[in-house]
Amino acid sequence: MRKDEEFSEWYNGLVEGAELSDKRYPIKGMNVWRPYGWSIMKLIDAAMREEFDSTGHGEVNFPVLIPETEFQKEAEHVKGFEGDVFWVTRGGFNELDVKLLLRPTSETAMYPMFKLWIRSHADLPLKVYQIVPVFRYETKMTRTFMRVREIHFFEAHTAHASFEDAEQQIREDLQINERLMRLLALPYIVSKRPDWDKFPGAHYSLGSDTLLPAGRSLQLATFHQYRDNFAKVYEVTYEAEGGEHKFVHQTTDGMSERILGALLAIHGDEKGLVLPPAAAPIQAVIVPVLEKGRQEQMLLEAQRLFLELRERMRVKLDDRDIRPGEKYYYWEARGVPLRVELGPREIEKSMATVVRRDTGDKRELPRDALGDRLRSVLELMQIAMWDRAEKMIRQNTFTITSLNEAKDGFNRMGWCGSEACGKTIADQTGMSVLGTPFYPEEFKGVCIVCGKPTKQVVYVAKAY
Amino acid sequence: MRKDEEFSEWYNGLVEGAELSDKRYPIKGMNVWRPYGWSIMKLIDAAMREEFDSTGHGEVNFPVLIPETEFQKEAEHVKGFEGDVFWVTRGGFNELDVKLLLRPTSETAMYPMFKLWIRSHADLPLKVYQIVPVFRYETKMTRTFMRVREIHFFEAHTAHASFEDAEQQIREDLQINERLMRLLALPYIVSKRPDWDKFPGAHYSLGSDTLLPAGRSLQLATFHQYRDNFAKVYEVTYEAEGGEHKFVHQTTDGMSERILGALLAIHGDEKGLVLPPAAAPIQAVIVPVLEKGRQEQMLLEAQRLFLELRERMRVKLDDRDIRPGEKYYYWEARGVPLRVELGPREIEKSMATVVRRDTGDKRELPRDALGDRLRSVLELMQIAMWDRAEKMIRQNTFTITSLNEAKDGFNRMGWCGSEACGKTIADQTGMSVLGTPFYPEEFKGVCIVCGKPTKQVVYVAKAY
Repeated sequence: MRKDEEFSEWYNGLVEGAELSDKRYPIKGMNVWRPYGWSIMKLIDAAMREEFDSTGHGEVNFPVLIPETEFQKEAEHVKGFEGDVFWVTRGGFNELDVKLLLRPTSETAMYPMFKLWIRSHADLPLKVYQIVPVFRYETKMTRTFMRVREIHFFEAHTAHASFEDAEQQIREDLQINERLMRLLALPYIVSKRPDWDKFPGAHYSLGSDTLLPAGRSLQLATFHQYRDNFAKVYEVTYEAEGGEHKFVHQTTDGMSERILGALLAIHGDEKGLVLPPAAAPIQAVIVPVLEKGRQEQMLLEAQRLFLELRERMRVKLDDRDIRPGEKYYYWEARGVPLRVELGPREIEKSMATVVRRDTGDKRELPRDALGDRLRSVLELMQIAMWDRAEKMIRQNTFTITSLNEAKDGFNRMGWCGSEACGKTIADQTGMSVLGTPFYPEEFKGVCIVCGKPTKQVVYVAKAY
Repeated sequence: MRKDEEFSEWYNGLVEGAELSDKRYPIKGMNVWRPYGWSIMKLIDAAMREEFDSTGHGEVNFPVLIPETEFQKEAEHVKGFEGDVFWVTRGGFNELDVKLLLRPTSETAMYPMFKLWIRSHADLPLKVYQIVPVFRYETKMTRTFMRVREIHFFEAHTAHASFEDAEQQIREDLQINERLMRLLALPYIVSKRPDWDKFPGAHYSLGSDTLLPAGRSLQLATFHQYRDNFAKVYEVTYEAEGGEHKFVHQTTDGMSERILGALLAIHGDEKGLVLPPAAAPIQAVIVPVLEKGRQEQMLLEAQRLFLELRERMRVKLDDRDIRPGEKYYYWEARGVPLRVELGPREIEKSMATVVRRDTGDKRELPRDALGDRLRSVLELMQIAMWDRAEKMIRQNTFTITSLNEAKDGFNRMGWCGSEACGKTIADQTGMSVLGTPFYPEEFKGVCIVCGKPTKQVVYVAKAY
C-alpha cells in the first residue's frame, strides 16, 4: 500500500501528466476539464445513459438554481446542506427578493415539478435522471475528481406507487451499478449506512465503497430510499385505482466524477494512467517505427492497419514527427490499453508488436485478422483489471476482534447494531463506520464493543 | 405570416403539447428540459460535437463560476455584461472575499487558462469548445428556448499566431455553420454587425439570422474576431519562431438552444412539431392497426418490421394499448417525420401505409426493402424542409428605397455605412440593423437616409 502523502503526490502527477484536468483555475476546488479527461468522463457518462435509458429512465435537465423557499421545505435536508451551499443574492444591479442557491443535489428542484407531473397511478413509476454540475462549498482540502466544489454529477430520481415498488427500484439500481462497475473495473462493497450517517431526508441509505491504494475507502455511489418523506413535504400524490390520493415513494441513485478518480487511483501506475478498455477513449494506438528511405511505404502500411482496426475498436494512428520512444511515453501516461508497433521488421514478417499497458506484456501477433486478435486481448484486459483490483480489496479486508487491530483497508467486525457501540467504534479507531453489508455475510461472533453475541458484521475504514 | 400574439400562443402550445420543456419551474426564465425536448437537443449537440471534433477542436468543460477579479479585466466586456449577471456572494454561512459570477459567456474564465496553456507557436492554433449552461439576468419577457435565464450554450474559442489565421478560423466556422444549418433545415443570412452592436470586446462580430413566421429575425449564431483585444488584457502570448513574444489572435463561435426554438417555430404547424429527419430522435414510428382475433400475428409483423427498420433509422414501435388515432395525434405533436401504419389490409397486400409529417402525404409502399425506401423519403424530406424554409425567407426579403416601406421580414436597403445613417434607420423603423451581408451582394443605389451613392446594402428587421 502506498502511504497517503506519496499517494497524493503520485495522484496529482498522474492527472497532470495525462492532461486530464487543470487545477490552476482561480477558484479553489473548481477545476478545468481538459479534452482528454473530458473524453474519458464522456465515455463513462455514455455508459450511464445506456444503462438508465434501457431501464426506462428519461433524461431531463433541471435548472442549476433553486429558490431558497423550495430548498427550505424539508428540515433535515436543509440542516444537512445549508452549510455547504453557494448563494446567489444579486442579479445585475438588484438584490434578489428570493435568494437562489446553486444546487448541491436536486431533490428540492425536482419534487415541486414531480407534484405537477404526477396525477394518477398511470403516471407511475416516474423515472428520470440527469448528468449535471452540482456545487458544494467544501472547506476541507480539495482533490481533483475526488473532492471538488463543482462536481460533475449523475442523479436518478424515481417515484413509485408503494414502498415495495421503491424497494424494487433500489434492487434495479444495484444491478445497474454492478454492470457499470464491471465496465470501469471497479470492485466495491455495498453497505447500509448507519442511521446517523444516512442522506439528509432519507429513510435509509446504501453506499458502495471501493478501496484506494493508500488503504482508504472511497464512496462511489449512493442509493437512497426516501419512503414518502419528501412526498409529504412537496405534496407529491397520485390518485390510486380506488380513487383515493396517496403519497408516492421515492428513491435516488447518485454518482459523480469520483468514479473517474477511483479508476485513476486504483489502476494507475508509475508510468501514468491504466484505463480499462471500456473506459478508454483510445483503445489502441498505432506507432509506426520508420526506417530511412522507406518512410512512405511504412506510413501507408500503418494507415492500412488503422483503417482495418477502426472497424473493431477506438484506434488512433500517431504519425507525429517525433521519436517512437516519446510516443510510447506519451500514450503510456494516458493509459491507452494497447500499443501496436509497426516497423520494418514487423512488416517483413507480416506481424505487429503489441504491448499491453496493464502488464507491460509485449508480443508479436500475426498481422492477419489482427483486429479480431486485439479485440480478444482487450476483453481479457477488461476482466484481468477487475480481477486484480478485486484481489487487492480481498487482501486488504481484515476481520478483527479488537478495535486496536484496525488498520488501513476494510475492517470487518461484529456489531450489535446499537448507535452507542457504532459511535464507540468510530471514536476509538478514528475511522468511519461504512455500515452493514447489503448482501448478507455469514457471521457468528460478538459485538466488538459490548461483547453481545451477534450475527451482524459492520465494515469500518478510514474514509477518503 | 402569423401575427405576433397568435405566434406566441401557438408556439407555447407546441412546446407543451410535445412535452419539450416545462416553464412552471419556480424561477422565471429557468425551465426544465423534459426527456423528449432534451433528446432533440442532445441530437443537435451531437451534430455540433461531430463538426467541431473533426475540425481539430477539443472539448473542454470550465467551471460555471468566474471570480469578479478576472471578469473585470476587459472594460468593454464588463460594461456589456455587468447588468446581466447573477452574483454569488455567500458560501455556506460566510460572505465570500471575492464575489463569483455565473458565467454569461466564458471569455473571462478561459483566457487566464489560455495564458498558462500557450507557450510557443507550437501550441497554436489552440481550438477548444464546450457545451454548458450560461446565465443571463434577463429582465425582458422570457420565452422557452428563445430568451431564457439559464441558456444551454455552445461556445468555441480559438487562439492563433496571427490575425490572418484567426480570419481563416472564421471562414471555417462559417462552413461548419452551413453544414449544421442544413442538418437542422434552418436557412439564414450572415451579416457583419454594425460597430455599435458588436460583441463587447470584439474587433468585429458576424451574426447569422433566420426569419420566424411572425416576420421577426432571430439570431442563430455569432462569430467574433477578437484580434488581440483579449490577449492583451489576459496576457496571452506565445514565443514566435524568431524568439520574440507576441500576442495571440482569438475568435469565438457561439450558438444556443435558440436553434431548437427556431426549428420549432419555422417548421411547426397546427398539429405540432415537424422535425427534419436529422434532428428527430425518432425518425419513423410504426403503428400497428390491430384487427380482432389476429392481434398476435399482427404485433409479430410489426415487430419484424421494427427490427428491419432499426438497421436503417431511429425507429419506434408504438404497441401501447390505445386507439391508433390517439397514437397518430401523439406522434404528430412530437414531429416524428414518418408514420408507418400496418393493418390487416397492408399485411395482406405486403404493403405498408406511410405518412409524411411535413406534407401529410400518405401512400402505400411495398413491404419489400421498405427500410431503403424510407431512407430515401427521409432524405427527400430533409431537403424539402430546407427548401420550403428558404423560399419563405426569399418571399419575405424586401429591397426598399424608403424607410416607411419597412415591414415584417428582412428589409434590404442601400446604406452609406455611417453610424449616423445606421442609427437613423433603426430609429425611424423601430427595427434592428442586422448589418451588411458577409457574402457580398450586387447592389448599386443610394443610402436610404443621406442619399449618397453606395454599393453596400444593409439588412434590417424587427429582431426577436
